[in-house]
Amino acid sequence: MKIHLKDYCVAEGEDIDLKKRPTRVDPVYKSKEQYKEILATHVEDLSELHRMHYASSKYAVLIIFQAMDAAGKDGAIRHVMSGVNPQGCQVFSFKHPSAAELEHDFLWRTTRDLPARGRISIFNRSYYEEVLIVRVHPGILHAEGIPDARHHDARLWKERYRSIVDLERHLHANGTRIVKIFLHLSKEEQRQRFLARIDEPDKNWKFSLADLEERKFWKEYRKAYEECIGATSTKDSPWYVVPADDKDNARLIVSQIVVEALKGLKAHYPKATDERIAQLQVIRADLTADT
Amino acid sequence: MKIHLKDYCVAEGEDIDLKKRPTRVDPVYKSKEQYKEILATHVEDLSELHRMHYASSKYAVLIIFQAMDAAGKDGAIRHVMSGVNPQGCQVFSFKHPSAAELEHDFLWRTTRDLPARGRISIFNRSYYEEVLIVRVHPGILHAEGIPDARHHDARLWKERYRSIVDLERHLHANGTRIVKIFLHLSKEEQRQRFLARIDEPDKNWKFSLADLEERKFWKEYRKAYEECIGATSTKDSPWYVVPADDKDNARLIVSQIVVEALKGLKAHYPKATDERIAQLQVIRADLTADT
Repeated sequence: MKIHLKDYCVAEGEDIDLKKRPTRVDPVYKSKEQYKEILATHVEDLSELHRMHYASSKYAVLIIFQAMDAAGKDGAIRHVMSGVNPQGCQVFSFKHPSAAELEHDFLWRTTRDLPARGRISIFNRSYYEEVLIVRVHPGILHAEGIPDARHHDARLWKERYRSIVDLERHLHANGTRIVKIFLHLSKEEQRQRFLARIDEPDKNWKFSLADLEERKFWKEYRKAYEECIGATSTKDSPWYVVPADDKDNARLIVSQIVVEALKGLKAHYPKATDERIAQLQVIRADLTADT
Repeated sequence: MKIHLKDYCVAEGEDIDLKKRPTRVDPVYKSKEQYKEILATHVEDLSELHRMHYASSKYAVLIIFQAMDAAGKDGAIRHVMSGVNPQGCQVFSFKHPSAAELEHDFLWRTTRDLPARGRISIFNRSYYEEVLIVRVHPGILHAEGIPDARHHDARLWKERYRSIVDLERHLHANGTRIVKIFLHLSKEEQRQRFLARIDEPDKNWKFSLADLEERKFWKEYRKAYEECIGATSTKDSPWYVVPADDKDNARLIVSQIVVEALKGLKAHYPKATDERIAQLQVIRADLTADT
């Protein structure tokens, strides 16, 4: 079965109703065996594409992961990106902002970690939290120095969407390709995974009461995601809404998205010029004689 | 004589012809004595306004200086900002970018130094160099990873103006007030100052052959400044074109611009609440008893 990325890609200006977007689809694989095979192929492709990307150093790649808790961001990053040389690929997680970060505009803290040319930055959560968790809990705006009167002002979020779209347009125009992935989980599947986290010793470090608190805001988060994805999907930097109730299938879709994005760079190893080839011959002669 | 800042402020969408803008105007002061008095008053105002700005911590202030060589940027910064507590005010000069900086988009390197709330950042040269010196010498784009085919593409500069305007809009919307000052020098006055730099021992460290090389591109720089100032003056973040042939007068105008900008913040010391006043009484009692 083939993965059609179009099924998951959000068009610019599209109205998003997450309830109508599936959290589970017919899996691409027929067996665990086959899942592993397909994933291994994707990872191998990724590794080779990344090497060429690194060598050609023409574009930068930013991959953003956003999702509800337990949707499988960490697992997807681990399984999909593990074949890639960490020299040219780094993962950044954004937790509680520092005091200095809170004293700057909301896009400041992530700027430092934007990818250089030839690199990949993976944002495990990102500046999008500023229109997601902050929107669901506008009290956070207080610490960001936003006057209280604006905390329930709908225009504030529209302004932030605009700032984000402008930033991404600027980055794209200057050679950064942005891949935005929303892992779309059902509330029931989250419940199952939370229960599993409690029971399994190698998972229960991941569970906190705060996660349960956030679950109570499920509807508010869904609304925030819908508006955010609708407002910030653009032709150049679209969102992918990936059905995430089946972790394995989600990883295959995610890896395919990243493979296609890297293929789109049309990177190749820098071609040696005649001059360079002649120079290499001289170096070879020198090294050969140096005994 | 009063300084009318409107005379120097560039309106949004205004076509700029720098030849029609004076590099010298009737001075505000009548004697060196009076110049010193006025400057001292401005500096005192600035110092007090800055203290309130720092204490209220509501806005951030970014002051950008751009000019041809020898126009007096360093002197203006030294004389105007010397009364301000360096705890809340820092000057950043941007010289040759590092390798890591060249591998990111052209707005990346200056982001780190953007002011936090309650602070002032002074940019002695800035991201505007990316549409000034880089425009005059498009070969620099090669090191920035821009394909050769685009080096003489007029759209590239329009794209960069847009990125800058978008960035400044975002910063303004998030509490940063931006003051942009172009010190407008005549070619003849630059010649005089260069000659003086050669002759005066305490100034000749400042002179380099590279400055003379850049002088040959005077027309190209003027054109780049005209287009840049015209394209990036906005209602919220306008440019000021300050006549700079008279250094002292330029400093009075610059200090007035900065004073007005800080006044515009309407900052005041945080008012103690009743609760806070009661708390302070408890602290006083504790300290009094603590012998």
